[in-house]
Amino acid sequence: NSKYQIAVLAGDYIGPEIMASGLQVLKTVSENTDFDYEISEVPFGGQAIDQTNDPLPDATLETCQNSDAILLAAIGGPKWDGVEKSPESGLLRIRQELGLFTNIRPTIINSTMKSFSPIKITEPIDFVIVRELTSGIYFGQPREKSQTQAIDTMRYSSEEIRRVAKVAFDMAMQRNKHVTLVDKANVLATSKLWREVVIDVAREYPEVKYDTSYVDSAAMKIISKPGQFDVILTENLFGDILSDEAAQITGSLGTIPSMSKGEVSPALYEPIHGSAPDIAGKGIANPLSMIKSVAMMLQYSFGRMDLAKQIMTAVDKSVDKKIVTPDLGGDYSTTKVTEFIVDSIKES
Amino acid sequence: NSKYQIAVLAGDYIGPEIMASGLQVLKTVSENTDFDYEISEVPFGGQAIDQTNDPLPDATLETCQNSDAILLAAIGGPKWDGVEKSPESGLLRIRQELGLFTNIRPTIINSTMKSFSPIKITEPIDFVIVRELTSGIYFGQPREKSQTQAIDTMRYSSEEIRRVAKVAFDMAMQRNKHVTLVDKANVLATSKLWREVVIDVAREYPEVKYDTSYVDSAAMKIISKPGQFDVILTENLFGDILSDEAAQITGSLGTIPSMSKGEVSPALYEPIHGSAPDIAGKGIANPLSMIKSVAMMLQYSFGRMDLAKQIMTAVDKSVDKKIVTPDLGGDYSTTKVTEFIVDSIKES
Ligand SMILES: CC(C)[C@H](C(=O)O)[C@@H](O)C(=O)O
Ligand SMILES: CC(C)[C@H](C(=O)O)[C@@H](O)C(=O)O
Repeated sequence: NSKYQIAVLAGDYIGPEIMASGLQVLKTVSENTDFDYEISEVPFGGQAIDQTNDPLPDATLETCQNSDAILLAAIGGPKWDGVEKSPESGLLRIRQELGLFTNIRPTIINSTMKSFSPIKITEPIDFVIVRELTSGIYFGQPREKSQTQAIDTMRYSSEEIRRVAKVAFDMAMQRNKHVTLVDKANVLATSKLWREVVIDVAREYPEVKYDTSYVDSAAMKIISKPGQFDVILTENLFGDILSDEAAQITGSLGTIPSMSKGEVSPALYEPIHGSAPDIAGKGIANPLSMIKSVAMMLQYSFGRMDLAKQIMTAVDKSVDKKIVTPDLGGDYSTTKVTEFIVDSIKES
Repeated sequence: NSKYQIAVLAGDYIGPEIMASGLQVLKTVSENTDFDYEISEVPFGGQAIDQTNDPLPDATLETCQNSDAILLAAIGGPKWDGVEKSPESGLLRIRQELGLFTNIRPTIINSTMKSFSPIKITEPIDFVIVRELTSGIYFGQPREKSQTQAIDTMRYSSEEIRRVAKVAFDMAMQRNKHVTLVDKANVLATSKLWREVVIDVAREYPEVKYDTSYVDSAAMKIISKPGQFDVILTENLFGDILSDEAAQITGSLGTIPSMSKGEVSPALYEPIHGSAPDIAGKGIANPLSMIKSVAMMLQYSFGRMDLAKQIMTAVDKSVDKKIVTPDLGGDYSTTKVTEFIVDSIKES
């Protein structure tokens, strides 16, 4: 089979709505090109719990493992509050099973997006957070709880640190050649190991400026001086917090894609926002993050910068012309925004 | 001895400069009142390392233990980078030795302070973060590091959670009756214990509205909707990150005081900012955070709301009239700002 295989995990609440947009755009942009693909839609998250009592059924995992890339929309929601194997546990498992140890999220505020930002922007912002995704306190053992005590373990090996650090430095070489390691080395033993390993990696990249910041201080700088960052490298939990903070300073969560990748297995692309139960079914979910996740996939998994660019140009045009959903101040529906983007691509 | 005993830890870099301001204001406001006190200046942090090779010498600890309140300015800096017993380790030890399990930091943006904020403020902001300060991953064992592996342990007992939760709910009763627990209960075992214990405490305060937020989501809300918070209750590491983020949205770090307290021992009052090595000795350090720490001490340790109010009124006046240091856009020195405040208090 010479077609690219793409696993499609539409998930819960607004998940299927925005996934439909993403797939429509993918279809449009690849029409009359030699980019040939096949999708396999498989259950994941709450949807999978309803069908099989398991947020990540074996068949879904297998489909993902056999694919060239994975598109995920969004999972979880109040319907599965308190179930033992939660939708989120499925997300953690898929990361680990596929060895997706690096999560990459761009934070970009250009002149088009500036007005959405809740902060007073004085310079263009363009940085990425490279978050370690399959270790640290998310997975460390022991993790235990009784009625009177609980324990979580933050654990890192030098190898786990080295491989994600390399991704960050490689990325910096393609960007502005600056890596900032964020940690809490004045308190944590794991952070001290991060410092030792990362300075070692930094020596292999003499062109890259390398510095460090404590996580509390970084939480301040993301607000006060976000323009100073190029690539932020950090461990799993800090990355979770800081990447959401960074997304918020753009004021447009509904537009941000992300990539999770490992050494060999397929990469996974998804919006950074959740399943938005409050607006599900209303037809007003912002499809841009999903559409941009498709562009990211085309660029990074399939080397089709040309197709990715076509999508990004159309997305920028929709924002410029204010053909956007209510979260961005427009009154267009998910479908209308998608149609506009599809038409722009066709015209170009 | 019927005088109140106040331990004074001036610390490093700008520490002594702003402490001088704080003490001058304390002297002024208590003149011709029945508030009688005695200060004991003792070495702490880098200053103490230079003298005794120990950031927290026994004599300093003893003085603190025998005092009614502690004023701390700021410690640490490049001079002690890499020393084994760091200034910061002294800070962690004093917290633990004195059982200061609660750290309280106000985030206030009123009309006077609004212009300093890096975010677009649409409503008045007034919340406090109640951070657990003597447990969690800062102190949990095992904490180990080899060349290839490191481990930190986040550990909480229900008792440690309960006592700080009570402080938060008591505080909410004096404020807008709303507590938000911030955790990562979708991942961490310790967070699940926090939820169990805190909901129990919440039942004892039926008037207080109680809700929860994941830490990543809270990092977003502090920027997008800070007006929704009243009291944020959280564990040690999350509190470290979120309270610095919250301080940053005020745009005036140099003005924020904090209190750390336990069940019985003296409380400790300090600015939330550090020792600012880059501006030390220049006479331009902002003294407001230290002066407001003195006011906080008068209010909470000594029940002298009257004196605290006099200080706060004078501080507000200096900001209103723009008699402020460069960090707030003024060109007044530490001494000039302090003199203005001292004079305002005398006039009132
Ligand atoms: C849902 C949750 C477990 C997850 C995480 O914390 O990693 C999410 O916040 C994310 O960032 O993808
Ligand atoms: C200096 C450091 C150990 C300390 C902490 O993390 O608690 C500081 O950031 C603070 O918040 O008081």
